[in-house]
Amino acid sequence: MKRYEQLADQISELIKRGDLPPGARIPSIRGACMAWGVSPATVFRAYYLLENRGMIKARPRSGYFVLPRARELLRQSPETSLRTAPKTVNVGELVFEVLKMIRQPETVPLGSAFLSPALFPMARVGKSCATVNRSVDLATMVDTLPPGHEDLRQQISLRYLMAGMTVPVDEIIITSGALEALTLSAQLLAAPGDVIVTEKPTFYAALQAIERLRLNVVEIPVDPMEGHDLDALARALQQHPVRACWFMTSFHNPTGVTLGDSKKQALVDLLARHDVPLIEDDVYNELHFGPDPVRPAKYFDRNGLVIHCGSFAKCLAPGYRIGWAAAGRFAGGLERAKWMTTLSASMPAQRAIADYLEHGGYERFLHKLRRELTHQQSQMLDAISRYFPANTTATKSDGSYFTWVALPDHVDSIQLFQAALKSGISVAPGPIFSADGAFRHHVRLNYGYPWSARLDRAVATLGALCADESRCGAKLAGPVQPS
Amino acid sequence: MKRYEQLADQISELIKRGDLPPGARIPSIRGACMAWGVSPATVFRAYYLLENRGMIKARPRSGYFVLPRARELLRQSPETSLRTAPKTVNVGELVFEVLKMIRQPETVPLGSAFLSPALFPMARVGKSCATVNRSVDLATMVDTLPPGHEDLRQQISLRYLMAGMTVPVDEIIITSGALEALTLSAQLLAAPGDVIVTEKPTFYAALQAIERLRLNVVEIPVDPMEGHDLDALARALQQHPVRACWFMTSFHNPTGVTLGDSKKQALVDLLARHDVPLIEDDVYNELHFGPDPVRPAKYFDRNGLVIHCGSFAKCLAPGYRIGWAAAGRFAGGLERAKWMTTLSASMPAQRAIADYLEHGGYERFLHKLRRELTHQQSQMLDAISRYFPANTTATKSDGSYFTWVALPDHVDSIQLFQAALKSGISVAPGPIFSADGAFRHHVRLNYGYPWSARLDRAVATLGALCADESRCGAKLAGPVQPS
Repeated sequence: MKRYEQLADQISELIKRGDLPPGARIPSIRGACMAWGVSPATVFRAYYLLENRGMIKARPRSGYFVLPRARELLRQSPETSLRTAPKTVNVGELVFEVLKMIRQPETVPLGSAFLSPALFPMARVGKSCATVNRSVDLATMVDTLPPGHEDLRQQISLRYLMAGMTVPVDEIIITSGALEALTLSAQLLAAPGDVIVTEKPTFYAALQAIERLRLNVVEIPVDPMEGHDLDALARALQQHPVRACWFMTSFHNPTGVTLGDSKKQALVDLLARHDVPLIEDDVYNELHFGPDPVRPAKYFDRNGLVIHCGSFAKCLAPGYRIGWAAAGRFAGGLERAKWMTTLSASMPAQRAIADYLEHGGYERFLHKLRRELTHQQSQMLDAISRYFPANTTATKSDGSYFTWVALPDHVDSIQLFQAALKSGISVAPGPIFSADGAFRHHVRLNYGYPWSARLDRAVATLGALCADESRCGAKLAGPVQPS
Repeated sequence: MKRYEQLADQISELIKRGDLPPGARIPSIRGACMAWGVSPATVFRAYYLLENRGMIKARPRSGYFVLPRARELLRQSPETSLRTAPKTVNVGELVFEVLKMIRQPETVPLGSAFLSPALFPMARVGKSCATVNRSVDLATMVDTLPPGHEDLRQQISLRYLMAGMTVPVDEIIITSGALEALTLSAQLLAAPGDVIVTEKPTFYAALQAIERLRLNVVEIPVDPMEGHDLDALARALQQHPVRACWFMTSFHNPTGVTLGDSKKQALVDLLARHDVPLIEDDVYNELHFGPDPVRPAKYFDRNGLVIHCGSFAKCLAPGYRIGWAAAGRFAGGLERAKWMTTLSASMPAQRAIADYLEHGGYERFLHKLRRELTHQQSQMLDAISRYFPANTTATKSDGSYFTWVALPDHVDSIQLFQAALKSGISVAPGPIFSADGAFRHHVRLNYGYPWSARLDRAVATLGALCADESRCGAKLAGPVQPS
């Protein structure tokens, strides 16, 4: 037991015996240091532990006080509140419920947006991080300022080359993850009140960013088999002063669909005729299951109108938060936006990834990862077909790690989300993928975790819940917000 | 000489001899690999080097081509274009001119916003970075997601405690530098068209962020001796529906002024009466020259209305991009904004700084840094008094590393900026610190670099330029944009 834990237990004992009654101010950090002969950090940690146990509470400028119910709490057995269903089903709230689930390892993460961390070469990337950051040449420190670390941008340009694309280094701006590249692009291209075209369904962070930027949105349908409805896009371009499109043209989240080359060409041509930029979210690009890379819409762009946004978060190093935009004619504007928003992307992470790309064996790792994900998709689709009700359909994708599941009409996905949570399973309910809470009979399931008996059981549980109309019945469901 | 350099020289030779004439397509990466028996990375680097030399150019989807003037370029001696004065004096452009100067080590950085990297314990922080990131416990990876790494937030809370403030860990959100904390706060509190109160003069990034967020701004004067004009603030609060104030109450950039405790108390009370939040930019907080910390306005806040924004970029680890907000009642909203903007701050940097704060000897380092900066301020003020014209005044500050210099009326600071640049010296001209291009007779000078004969000479040169009306005369200056 560490010193601060001992100290916390000593203070607990005082509270339990009533020596420190509810409402009492406990000793100041300085006072406690003197009284117990320990460092401020030890006292602080002890108090922090007691706060987490619900026994004391910090009040700004006043100090720490014993909470009213602290004595009773001590006598109760610890209870987890993890399994409580969310109180409201506001769509915005739902997104955060789903996102925060990742912090809870007890929950089976079928609703997660992330791959299993176990699939990544974290040790090898960590080695790069340690090697290149142990000492820093002062003269090169400024090199990670916008547009970003030159070695890293060269490596990214080289990966484009390997995929048959010539993207000059000058066009590449390093960002704090792809999400920053995407939102800065939207902010650069459209002012509040301007119209931007998105997909339906789409990635919820796009919806949130567009809401925060106060943009008006026109949604065009994305079919899980056919992809983006270009006729609807053509009409939107005629009817509205569209400032940009924000699309995911390969391994679309959540549907998994990938536009073919000819459709991508048609999309780029259509936008070029209207001189409308495309913000292309291509974060799953490296996770293709076929032998060859899938060409992004950027490949077909001859006008510098496509801002291609990529990331290492999904395919190499989650948490490092290194993404980029290959921004075409908008590179200059995006570089300035980056200077003025978060200055540079974090230096240790930029250096680490540049070093890994050069020396770490990225191609070999990706090869293995793609094979694993292909296998995991088979397992997931097989389990769904075994356990879910008869008229369920689940998309099979050529890459990434999601399947978009259309449930029978009697199943309400928000009811399913809540019921599943009580069983310790997360799912991503359809309504979080559109602005109007549509897709009440869809869920997105994640197969980015190595297959296991636990996952198999979780899919079985979901299947049983779907069959149980009394728990997930659409007819019982109230309106989306609030229920 | 490395292999790619050899290859670049071989190709240079072909261009020089005319074997590869202007406009010619040079071999593809694949072709070059086969022809010269090297890896794609080597070819890529060679081509990149040739691009930088201005000899070839990448064209998207087409490949690399010899540039028209490549042969002539080869015969000229290399010329640097660094000393060229900017073509326009648009204030927005000026900011980027000043910012980008940091990338040019030849320029004497009196206009820089940064401290000398040599002053930071980069080796010790790098050691922390290497130690804690060499391997990563997968179970703890999610711990750096918003609100941020728990150890780091505890350490920050502990630093508040040391300064006599109780700031609960729950209130602290880790961000990608303080700039993100500030801009997310502004975005959270005010919608496009809403009114926000700023300072005049103020930090240019605040102006840029407010412009990008399409907020309306009311400026209140900041006097280099007296600080913020609270009467003007009171009037603004009565006349406008103010959504927030964005102030720097200690070691104000650019004036250096610090509000005393009673004035900070009065500011907080005034805002509390109007229920208006304060976004407090306190990034220079640790750089106090006196023995005791300076209390921020946050210290006097009893209503959770102050969002206190801090950073390690100015006092420990530039480039790591780790800042935070102690966000009072807005902590929940800010955490969500962070999830939706750049997800988390970079994991290796969060871990490295948490480890350094616990084990690195931060207090000892800061003690030394404060002493150095105090000394550097004396040297700078002494040099200014020796070299600048008689009716020049320069502020002396109790912390940070800037002096705000009021030049004689005949000197135009944009003319001085341009003339100084021709002499290889950067300054930060007054007009970049306000929305309307005021302060044409002011410059901000940086004393965050160890004093040297080179700095002394640079200040002497600036003084001589100021005395030379034919080069920096205010009467010769045109309007601010464009000149």
